[in-house]
Amino acid sequence: MNRSGMSLRLKDGKLEIVDQTMLPREEKWLHADSPETTAALIHRLAIRGAPLIGVSAALSLGLYSIAEGKKSVEEVRKNAELLVSARPTAVNLRNCIESCLRVLETTGDGSAVMTEAVRLYDEDVALCERMAERGAPLINDGDGVLTHCNTGGLATVGRGTALGVIAKAWEQGKKIHVYVDETRPLLQGSRLTAWELKKLGIPFTVICDSMAATLMRQGKIQKVFTGADRVAVNGDSANKIGTYSVAVLAKHHGIPFYIVAPRSTYDPRCPTGDGIPIEIRDSAEITSVTGNTTLPAWNPSFDVTPAALITAIVFDDELRKTQSNEK
Amino acid sequence: MNRSGMSLRLKDGKLEIVDQTMLPREEKWLHADSPETTAALIHRLAIRGAPLIGVSAALSLGLYSIAEGKKSVEEVRKNAELLVSARPTAVNLRNCIESCLRVLETTGDGSAVMTEAVRLYDEDVALCERMAERGAPLINDGDGVLTHCNTGGLATVGRGTALGVIAKAWEQGKKIHVYVDETRPLLQGSRLTAWELKKLGIPFTVICDSMAATLMRQGKIQKVFTGADRVAVNGDSANKIGTYSVAVLAKHHGIPFYIVAPRSTYDPRCPTGDGIPIEIRDSAEITSVTGNTTLPAWNPSFDVTPAALITAIVFDDELRKTQSNEK
Repeated sequence: MNRSGMSLRLKDGKLEIVDQTMLPREEKWLHADSPETTAALIHRLAIRGAPLIGVSAALSLGLYSIAEGKKSVEEVRKNAELLVSARPTAVNLRNCIESCLRVLETTGDGSAVMTEAVRLYDEDVALCERMAERGAPLINDGDGVLTHCNTGGLATVGRGTALGVIAKAWEQGKKIHVYVDETRPLLQGSRLTAWELKKLGIPFTVICDSMAATLMRQGKIQKVFTGADRVAVNGDSANKIGTYSVAVLAKHHGIPFYIVAPRSTYDPRCPTGDGIPIEIRDSAEITSVTGNTTLPAWNPSFDVTPAALITAIVFDDELRKTQSNEK
Repeated sequence: MNRSGMSLRLKDGKLEIVDQTMLPREEKWLHADSPETTAALIHRLAIRGAPLIGVSAALSLGLYSIAEGKKSVEEVRKNAELLVSARPTAVNLRNCIESCLRVLETTGDGSAVMTEAVRLYDEDVALCERMAERGAPLINDGDGVLTHCNTGGLATVGRGTALGVIAKAWEQGKKIHVYVDETRPLLQGSRLTAWELKKLGIPFTVICDSMAATLMRQGKIQKVFTGADRVAVNGDSANKIGTYSVAVLAKHHGIPFYIVAPRSTYDPRCPTGDGIPIEIRDSAEITSVTGNTTLPAWNPSFDVTPAALITAIVFDDELRKTQSNEK
């Protein structure tokens, strides 16, 4: 059952996860030796990216279920709840954990939870490849592509969502240039996406989030691709804070705006984006750079982009067109 | 001829300037003892804010003109050029220095340059007050007001431009709340504007630049006020990078967007914003926070907001309406 990726390793019954808060300075691998540890790693963003969070939590629950000393269904359930509560906005997390719990209910067997978690791992790798294949034709040779946050192999178990599409287009020989929003406050763009693009050899330029509008006005950006943490039934999509801002800017400049997300991101229980809970994080994440963390600040971790601003959503199993993006 | 403000002190023939790169950690005053020193302080943003830059440079040239050992007109001119080249986008700087040179041409007298520089100082204080009085009626009781960069007593010699208007509205008893864009990459919002608002006792919340769109969508922002570094004849306005982004977002949400600037910011030689030179700064200002300054990054210091996105420009001598901001 060993597996190995850019951000997660499963080896001989042990789960190791790269600490994404340390990148790009240091590639430090941490032992996720219990659901408590994994939940804490998710909460402090050492593990991040909706699909990666879901699979990491499932594997953690699977390892717990097969650990020495038979675990009761109640014990597994309690740990499942702990894991789900670590990131309330991410629906993949809940979906993955619920999938594990269904297997447990059906079989009553802890080892079946582990098998299901590994299946979710393999599924994510395949899903990423399908999204990449479905999305890459949307990118033309010579395009400037803007992306926000990190959506690559550090956000998923496979090759990524939005960044997987971009990498696929590059593999197909299209000469593209990627503009990377640094993505304040936690800089997933300049820390993680830039790190991945460098590894992949794809040309890129990092910008501050506030500079994207000027690039669009200068005609440097032909497409925008981002991921999503949750997609509502009507197509409204929650993603990293700043995504909504980029979508409004793209609309104003007549630039197509695409979301790339696995089907597990789709929430049939959420009719619109209004029902998506938005996590508000510690304001010190914003103010610490000023040397004064007592400043009043507001730090929502996500925002919701209404479907009307999204040209299409690239799911692994469907290209869903939501609006025509006429200027 | 002594003068004293929040950001600049003229005392017994010596010019002292607060190092704005050290705020809010430390209030450190530096001697600007020559035009070379002042130009270097402008270049490294220890002195910033278009009006403050202009008056600081004029005072520095005035002190040089009256320093021991008679200075030739050529020497003064050479130092004037050095000062102007320190910040090519800021037209106030050029206007202030040209005003000093005209006096020198007319009188041939170095001390007249100093007198002119002090007049520019006093004029800025009066200008700020006039802008504040003209702009404050645009703010209603209960408004949420978004501002970008720093435009207060640290950006001018007087009480400021956009922030002066906001402070005036507060003085008039209007219960407002100010949302402060942190303003990456150099954080003039979270470092300087927050510091000033705290001193003034006006309630505020710092946000990342990418969060303004969500606040607008939530109905928390009723007005946007920013400064300008140069206003073209048609009303296009150059200001701190990110201003154009905010203007597009305001337009999308039907929120009035105001520029506040002294007449000295107006450039009759610039028909449109296309003629305004945009300074591109060191990319390390963006990438240094990631621990890897070798990342490719693009760091324009300003952007241009077209007049069509500006509801009105509050000059000290005119409220110029540029568009109706219909949604």
